[in-house]
Amino acid sequence: MGIFDTDLDRTQANFTALSPISFLRRAAAIYPEKTAVIYGERRLTWLEVWQRSVCVAHALQARGIVQGDTVAILSANLPEMFEAHFAVPMAGAVLNAINMRLDANTVGFILSHGEAKVFLVDKEFGLVAEQALTVADVTPQVIHIDDNTCSEGKLLGEMDYDALVAEGAQLLQEYAEVPVDAGEYLPQDEWQAIALNYTSGTTGNPKGVVYHHRGAYLNAVSNALTWHMGEHPVYLWTLPMFHCNGWCFPWTLAVNAGTSVCIRQVREELVYQSIAAHKVTHFCGAPVVLNTLLNADKQLQQMIQHEVKVMTAGAAPPAAIIEGMQNMGVDVTHVYGLTETYGPVTLCAWRDDLWGELESAEQATLKARQGVGGQMLEGLMVADPETLEPVPRDGLAIGEIMMRGNNVMKGYLKNPAATVEAFSGGWFHSGDLAVWHEDGYIQIKDRSKDIIISGGENISSIEIEDLLFKHPSIMEAAVVAKNSEKWGETPCAFVTLRAGEELTEQDVIEYCRSHLARFKVPKNVVFTDLPKTSTGKVQKFALRELAEQL
Amino acid sequence: MGIFDTDLDRTQANFTALSPISFLRRAAAIYPEKTAVIYGERRLTWLEVWQRSVCVAHALQARGIVQGDTVAILSANLPEMFEAHFAVPMAGAVLNAINMRLDANTVGFILSHGEAKVFLVDKEFGLVAEQALTVADVTPQVIHIDDNTCSEGKLLGEMDYDALVAEGAQLLQEYAEVPVDAGEYLPQDEWQAIALNYTSGTTGNPKGVVYHHRGAYLNAVSNALTWHMGEHPVYLWTLPMFHCNGWCFPWTLAVNAGTSVCIRQVREELVYQSIAAHKVTHFCGAPVVLNTLLNADKQLQQMIQHEVKVMTAGAAPPAAIIEGMQNMGVDVTHVYGLTETYGPVTLCAWRDDLWGELESAEQATLKARQGVGGQMLEGLMVADPETLEPVPRDGLAIGEIMMRGNNVMKGYLKNPAATVEAFSGGWFHSGDLAVWHEDGYIQIKDRSKDIIISGGENISSIEIEDLLFKHPSIMEAAVVAKNSEKWGETPCAFVTLRAGEELTEQDVIEYCRSHLARFKVPKNVVFTDLPKTSTGKVQKFALRELAEQL
Repeated sequence: MGIFDTDLDRTQANFTALSPISFLRRAAAIYPEKTAVIYGERRLTWLEVWQRSVCVAHALQARGIVQGDTVAILSANLPEMFEAHFAVPMAGAVLNAINMRLDANTVGFILSHGEAKVFLVDKEFGLVAEQALTVADVTPQVIHIDDNTCSEGKLLGEMDYDALVAEGAQLLQEYAEVPVDAGEYLPQDEWQAIALNYTSGTTGNPKGVVYHHRGAYLNAVSNALTWHMGEHPVYLWTLPMFHCNGWCFPWTLAVNAGTSVCIRQVREELVYQSIAAHKVTHFCGAPVVLNTLLNADKQLQQMIQHEVKVMTAGAAPPAAIIEGMQNMGVDVTHVYGLTETYGPVTLCAWRDDLWGELESAEQATLKARQGVGGQMLEGLMVADPETLEPVPRDGLAIGEIMMRGNNVMKGYLKNPAATVEAFSGGWFHSGDLAVWHEDGYIQIKDRSKDIIISGGENISSIEIEDLLFKHPSIMEAAVVAKNSEKWGETPCAFVTLRAGEELTEQDVIEYCRSHLARFKVPKNVVFTDLPKTSTGKVQKFALRELAEQL
Repeated sequence: MGIFDTDLDRTQANFTALSPISFLRRAAAIYPEKTAVIYGERRLTWLEVWQRSVCVAHALQARGIVQGDTVAILSANLPEMFEAHFAVPMAGAVLNAINMRLDANTVGFILSHGEAKVFLVDKEFGLVAEQALTVADVTPQVIHIDDNTCSEGKLLGEMDYDALVAEGAQLLQEYAEVPVDAGEYLPQDEWQAIALNYTSGTTGNPKGVVYHHRGAYLNAVSNALTWHMGEHPVYLWTLPMFHCNGWCFPWTLAVNAGTSVCIRQVREELVYQSIAAHKVTHFCGAPVVLNTLLNADKQLQQMIQHEVKVMTAGAAPPAAIIEGMQNMGVDVTHVYGLTETYGPVTLCAWRDDLWGELESAEQATLKARQGVGGQMLEGLMVADPETLEPVPRDGLAIGEIMMRGNNVMKGYLKNPAATVEAFSGGWFHSGDLAVWHEDGYIQIKDRSKDIIISGGENISSIEIEDLLFKHPSIMEAAVVAKNSEKWGETPCAFVTLRAGEELTEQDVIEYCRSHLARFKVPKNVVFTDLPKTSTGKVQKFALRELAEQL
């Protein structure tokens, strides 16, 4: 033991487990009357979010919830959903926010696999939840979240979320002042689980990704750094909170005492009206959300008269969408990550010194790359998945994107084989294929399973999609592999045209031929709406099935 | 063991020790050609800082430095001083940056107490270092830092710092690309010591405050959040890096790939010229530095034509100084901390919604308070030092400021008694006395030892100083206790007048009488220059001696 390791141990004075709960306490202590949440006519201050979270935490404990128990929630982006990101971990429990677009069977699987002890259910999803409980082999306490703006659905369970708050208030007798630290509400160990998020799993059962307090704390801060957010941003919840805990943004908004504008549905009028009415400064969304906003009525678009920033991820954004948003005056930050990395961990860091003078289309093309590691990511590389040898930085060689650091998941719940495989060689294997450019920026070429291998050549479906998006008549496009006796696979394009536009299959093929190497040109073009997941990702597995039926 | 603790252990993929070294690697990987350091005609890019630090780390290891060894440095704010904040911990060693204004005996004590194995010495301080080594009971390897702009001093030791870089380069044969993570240069344990900083210790021997990698990482990020710095700030080094490692700003500048403008001396012309020439966006300094800038030639002041932010701490800033800087167009962020807290951990968070419409003098008075905890501080209170009971938030009751969290020091080196005392009750006892305002903001009234007790009443020396600073003829003031048979103690004021101004002792007493309770009015007023420490703090112990000789 050296002199620096002697009599210099951790004490209560100089060591606290990292947890985003601390950010909530701080926001409530310093900015008690600042608005934390807006939903329609409702308002919650940071003091109220703290007080209500304290109540819910105590009520859950009184109902038998102990450290490491799972509290599931099936809800739209409501104030209660936001609050649960604090209240549930403050009880020592693990928040399992379930994708609200899932079918009852899958919800039932998740409740069972995650061993939910309590199930919070938004009225809108009462019927799905009810059915899910009939197939689940657990019987959680069910508490409903009422919302008088929602006319459909069902109030499930015997108790209301507000009654849970009241139950906690009764236990506490009176709200104390915000304490001098988050003390009893913090985990003993920052490695303790804070959330459980199931992957969308296009085949087989979804996997349960476990987050810990340390990672949630760090990625929440990373978001603030990526966006240089400053204090009191106004954030619109266009991104579902069930998706990687809203990329950790509920916690980020506590870091900088921002305001969350909650909306039940991402309808274009509501988005534009909310941005204008509340002077929204930041929002997040998959490229499909941006595309919807871009294709909205011009009158709606003109409602944005102040500085707005959008962060996009969840699928590689076509350069045309980035350019469109920028031209609308909305600053796009392109980030990238996975459920396994707490949401975004890379960003396409803007190089004004190098790119500031380029044409907007060129800028958008550069920005469409997934970029470089964020401040809290420790390692990022594009490498051979077997040898872990990084690929050359030539923009051509394809490898797998791999990450390491404190914002990589704790692992998959009850699935040690999958965890070991994902972490093989000490790196998280993303399953995304990319090239590494000379300037150190990475660019996704495809999901491993989405690459098209035709006549022995690798074809990036994203490259073809990017080209299709640039066609003025095309609103959306997706490209998948279709089996071919001759070539192994060939590209098959699914295209949605803009209203009033007309194109033939041959038009599209000719267009591609004039811009792409011959082997990359789609052999088939189908005009149709694209099936999507709840997070806006095109369901390529469904398209692959369609392609085989042609 | 619950389901969330089973098969979900730490691996290389999902756990990395927190260390600011990671920020350097990232800055070099993403912004290799960006300027990291400017000093006169010299420029270093982030890639060069990384490469040179790698070389120095390897050279130190080849010279026998192992984990936990101390590398001392006595240097002005030179590029080498900046670099040492990375290179030394990258070798696993502990950086001991010594106050360059100390006498040889104290430097000798520090070298001995810290058990320095290597001693890096700026030419300017070669003679002091040489003398210090004659009294020290250690014989470190001495390496000098040459600087052709410095005509005085002595090149001590057989070897030059640049030769050390070259030695490392020889060992490495060739610089590799910046690696995909900071790997071998990171500590095994984030609790490992990164730096050793001696308190200025006005009486007795200075105490060695030990920092760890975790705290340095977190406080570096906290600085970026406090200032919402964004990428690529241009930071002027008016704050000595030997002071709490420049409040952790060398590491903050790696977080956001900023540029460090180094200057050897804080002369007003040089400061203004540097701000103008390099478009400096941020700098830090004690109130005395701000006061110097305020009293500089108007022509110099008019050189600032762009947005500049200054962070001030190190002594309670008189409201008049804050107001003066603001009126000059420089945005003041008032922060507070101690050597024991890695520099600043509180900030007077600006409340534009509440204070935006006030007169500038009122704003300055509010901003002169030490404020609230920063994002990375876990607990802050003003409390009774015995019972740890927080004082009422009435702006009147005086208690001691106490902190807890990950940016509180590891402890005092080889001084377990002092460590235990400082952390008594699980809180760090700052020794600063303060009130707690109703809005949750704290305000220092005095150091414990600076409070004046007269006729049984506590008198805040800061309250009197604040008043004196507002007098148009007074440039600087300090108030200390003078022993009195009748009252126990009475306030004694030391005042520096502005050039060309005249005041008598009676004038000052009359002025105080018209604004203060009678018992608070100084009984003696001395017109003199104020003795100061190298960090700009008034040496009150020296004034107390002078007061007794009156």
